[in-house]
Amino acid sequence: MKTAKELEQFILDNIPLSRAMSLQVSGFTLQPPSLTLTCPLTPNSNDKGTGFAGSIVSCATLAGWGLTSLLAAHNNIDATVVIASSNIDYLKPITDDFQVVATLAAEESVERFNQGLDSKGKSRLKVHINVMQGEILAASQFGLYAAREKRG
Amino acid sequence: MKTAKELEQFILDNIPLSRAMSLQVSGFTLQPPSLTLTCPLTPNSNDKGTGFAGSIVSCATLAGWGLTSLLAAHNNIDATVVIASSNIDYLKPITDDFQVVATLAAEESVERFNQGLDSKGKSRLKVHINVMQGEILAASQFGLYAAREKRG
Repeated sequence: MKTAKELEQFILDNIPLSRAMSLQVSGFTLQPPSLTLTCPLTPNSNDKGTGFAGSIVSCATLAGWGLTSLLAAHNNIDATVVIASSNIDYLKPITDDFQVVATLAAEESVERFNQGLDSKGKSRLKVHINVMQGEILAASQFGLYAAREKRG
Repeated sequence: MKTAKELEQFILDNIPLSRAMSLQVSGFTLQPPSLTLTCPLTPNSNDKGTGFAGSIVSCATLAGWGLTSLLAAHNNIDATVVIASSNIDYLKPITDDFQVVATLAAEESVERFNQGLDSKGKSRLKVHINVMQGEILAASQFGLYAAREKRG
């Protein structure tokens, strides 16, 4: 699983809620590391007709997981990735379809992440996730993800 | 909207993702303030067959919103409630249906929350949400919610 398309298929096949969210993996770059998911508003709306916080945080959580998984795969390591913790600030109500962009936290590097996987078979990655409606920053999340090499 | 049943109906009618999660409002007490939601595992599972972090955090986020909304309603104030921020620690994988229990954070009181609503028409509430699989604490979230009286 190394491309946006493969990741999208894996998510839709294995996480039922992602289908209910009509989630799409809309972009991935390895250099710099960045993963973008897209969600339509309608299935992710709340009682006020704006973006449901649960959908926003769920999509952000998945974006960080996806980025961590793709980075491990591009280091040629078949890893299990889980989230350890996260925090999110909701900044603006969302009134249309939204994008969720995961990048490395400022203090992180792919080299450090890969080094842990290569030497110990496990590593952690702090991911910064921005939830955008067009140019508007609607929410900002930091998530800590743990990757562990699968043992044959 | 003052009972668990009314809250459940409101959520299911107005938040499409809650239906995909098969979410139930399974308990509410005013004294001490506590709201319990229940989610089945199957629609909320991930690629590992355990609880999807996105479902867990989404359900926890909704539990705090529900508790804050019910407290405002029991203070006879028709309020709009939104989440401002939250942080969550994922402690154990979930392997079965789970309960999400929202209570006041240790430093909070209903009196303080009501006072803000009564005097300024707005108030904030910090909610502690435990995600339980039976007796096992699987995740722990703190959420900060803002309530504002609707203006006729």
